[in-house]
Amino acid sequence: MGILTLLTDFGLEDYYVAAVKGVVLSTAPGTTLVDISHQVPAGDLETGAFLLRAAVPSFPAGTVHLAVVDPGVGSDRRLLVVRQGEATFVAPDNGLLTPFLDGAAVWSAERHELFRDLASGVETGHTFHGRDRFAPLAAALLNGATPAALGRPIDDPVRLVAPAPQRRGDELLGRVIHIDRFGNLVTDLPAGWLPPGAFEAEVAGRRTDVRVDHYRQLPAGRAGVLTGSLATLELSLRDASLAERWGVERGAAVRIRLAATIGEEVQ
Amino acid sequence: MGILTLLTDFGLEDYYVAAVKGVVLSTAPGTTLVDISHQVPAGDLETGAFLLRAAVPSFPAGTVHLAVVDPGVGSDRRLLVVRQGEATFVAPDNGLLTPFLDGAAVWSAERHELFRDLASGVETGHTFHGRDRFAPLAAALLNGATPAALGRPIDDPVRLVAPAPQRRGDELLGRVIHIDRFGNLVTDLPAGWLPPGAFEAEVAGRRTDVRVDHYRQLPAGRAGVLTGSLATLELSLRDASLAERWGVERGAAVRIRLAATIGEEVQ
Amino acid sequence: MGILTLLTDFGLEDYYVAAVKGVVLSTAPGTTLVDISHQVPAGDLETGAFLLRAAVPSFPAGTVHLAVVDPGVGSDRRLLVVRQGEATFVAPDNGLLTPFLDGAAVWSAERHELFRDLASGVETGHTFHGRDRFAPLAAALLNGATPAALGRPIDDPVRLVAPAPQRRGDELLGRVIHIDRFGNLVTDLPAGWLPPGAFEAEVAGRRTDVRVDHYRQLPAGRAGVLTGSLATLELSLRDASLAERWGVERGAAVRIRLAATIGEEVQ
Repeated sequence: MGILTLLTDFGLEDYYVAAVKGVVLSTAPGTTLVDISHQVPAGDLETGAFLLRAAVPSFPAGTVHLAVVDPGVGSDRRLLVVRQGEATFVAPDNGLLTPFLDGAAVWSAERHELFRDLASGVETGHTFHGRDRFAPLAAALLNGATPAALGRPIDDPVRLVAPAPQRRGDELLGRVIHIDRFGNLVTDLPAGWLPPGAFEAEVAGRRTDVRVDHYRQLPAGRAGVLTGSLATLELSLRDASLAERWGVERGAAVRIRLAATIGEEVQ
Repeated sequence: MGILTLLTDFGLEDYYVAAVKGVVLSTAPGTTLVDISHQVPAGDLETGAFLLRAAVPSFPAGTVHLAVVDPGVGSDRRLLVVRQGEATFVAPDNGLLTPFLDGAAVWSAERHELFRDLASGVETGHTFHGRDRFAPLAAALLNGATPAALGRPIDDPVRLVAPAPQRRGDELLGRVIHIDRFGNLVTDLPAGWLPPGAFEAEVAGRRTDVRVDHYRQLPAGRAGVLTGSLATLELSLRDASLAERWGVERGAAVRIRLAATIGEEVQ
Repeated sequence: MGILTLLTDFGLEDYYVAAVKGVVLSTAPGTTLVDISHQVPAGDLETGAFLLRAAVPSFPAGTVHLAVVDPGVGSDRRLLVVRQGEATFVAPDNGLLTPFLDGAAVWSAERHELFRDLASGVETGHTFHGRDRFAPLAAALLNGATPAALGRPIDDPVRLVAPAPQRRGDELLGRVIHIDRFGNLVTDLPAGWLPPGAFEAEVAGRRTDVRVDHYRQLPAGRAGVLTGSLATLELSLRDASLAERWGVERGAAVRIRLAATIGEEVQ
């Protein structure tokens, strides 16, 4: 049987994640279930999209990804089935799948007979599409249904709009797009943009000109820049949280001045 | 192989859940393990029973459910095997399985040779029946043992006593039986009890007369009532925690006055 | 397919654990994945080693254990493959596997072609060996590779140094090696060292002379000593956290005076 990953903002204290899994296993027994995270802050589409983008490339071809961060549950927002390359996704149409829409085929799922909350005789509300709609859709895909059999093609899925990182002369301008458990500041700046040589990175008014290959090389107590696990630049502190030390939150602007610029100011 | 769900108050920071799973897989390899939750507050039987009641119906026939919230571990409280319909349960006899006792067959497990803490040569205490007794019982069931082969029938399992929701004339009287991660107030009032028309719901001295179908319809900043995922009434706030806003805790009384009553007061 | 356990300090809010699992399933599909814990405090080798030691014996022969608490990721610290009895381990060479080194065979993994961060054409940093090196190693083992095929034998793996518990005349001297979710104080003193009879146990200046078999026997509000689930002595409070009540942290000294000594003082 296939692999299904799950990403939600349901948390781990409720029965919600288990109910979704139960429905999947009822229809697609033997599925290998893998949690990406259920600790997405409630309704936080940006974090959900980030975690998906980061985790999905590690899974084998054919994996189905179920993602439910869905403040519009029960409204007329569409339910998407997306195929990009060898990966298939099921999620609400609210931007959560933004990282996977380029070059993708997209369907709006409309096979109402699959939806448990619309089935006759079932007494339930319209607040738990994770269990009642998305889980049956994922199970159908795991059982071999094609996306086309589950809905109609659309070309206008909702996208999250995020400012792209920029190179302006000798400046790199980006953002902190994630703060991980260790307090590392993950940026959207491709690591390849920072050439060898002098530089100065600034976030929230704090600065560093240290570059290292890995955390252990960081001088004690000093922040530094390195290539993170997504091949973007990351700012870190050794054995402590840089986010806490510098008081940085997700979304903070990151500005890196390259050698030439620094030289000018020095003159 | 079969499916085993697990619900405990062991938390996720300890080795306890893994030890239970290891013992199950030692005897019943290939079992599909699904966590319901391990974040039940320590010793909180009501929350454990609620989560079980909410999650179990989503699982396929034949699923075995292992539930360990067990402040009496090591004492002479019995170990239950319960069969209700196509579901089988293993849990301490302390009320945790209350939602599944109606119409159920119940056994007290007494096959001491299955219990690791009673096996000769094993040096262990009597504080971890999850690993030493419940896991072997669940594994035996997953391997095809009948409940009758594991114990003797009993008819007096411990039950949690909870006040039932009531309809008195034009009043509905119930309780908040769960507060979920989003701060929604899940009540025990069947959604079908609230007819169309004017009403006023009161919890903790706060009131609302708004009814909606889903969260997105809630007016910004105002609480409302809707049909929740268990087909009971739920009070919610859009994009924020109503429990926090209103200062409501589990167990709070819920009172709903229907149209007629409201009219009387207006006159 | 085989069983793989995972223990890390990655937390559950990030994509890190899922990425490791995705890589494993890409190479070793069908593997049964079991989390031990991902809530090890960041960089805390002692807690990681304790949880491994406690959980591993519950798993069946042939299980592979992947453990990543790795503040030195990316440095020249070695990657270990360890075989002790029927269990195989993959982890950084930093002491995390200390409980499993006695009588074990140990290899330093050096098959660079398995390492994703060294593969040509892959753009990634050196900060996520869990995904890029340890996961491929574990997958190779799950697919039947011998440890010897993955590295060269070594005999000097890094070990954590911990003071051993001691018996001095009528005194037992040990430490609190773990505080669990319930606030129980797990010590390193073998339960068999405490003979029947009078005693007095002292931690952090607080004392108890109560011994029980299980939690329910504890007198309300009074601490007591019992045999814990690892067959060591444990100090507990009924239905509350003793660690909180007494203000005890991991590492605290535990001193138990046996009957004779107590008698002397009384005289």
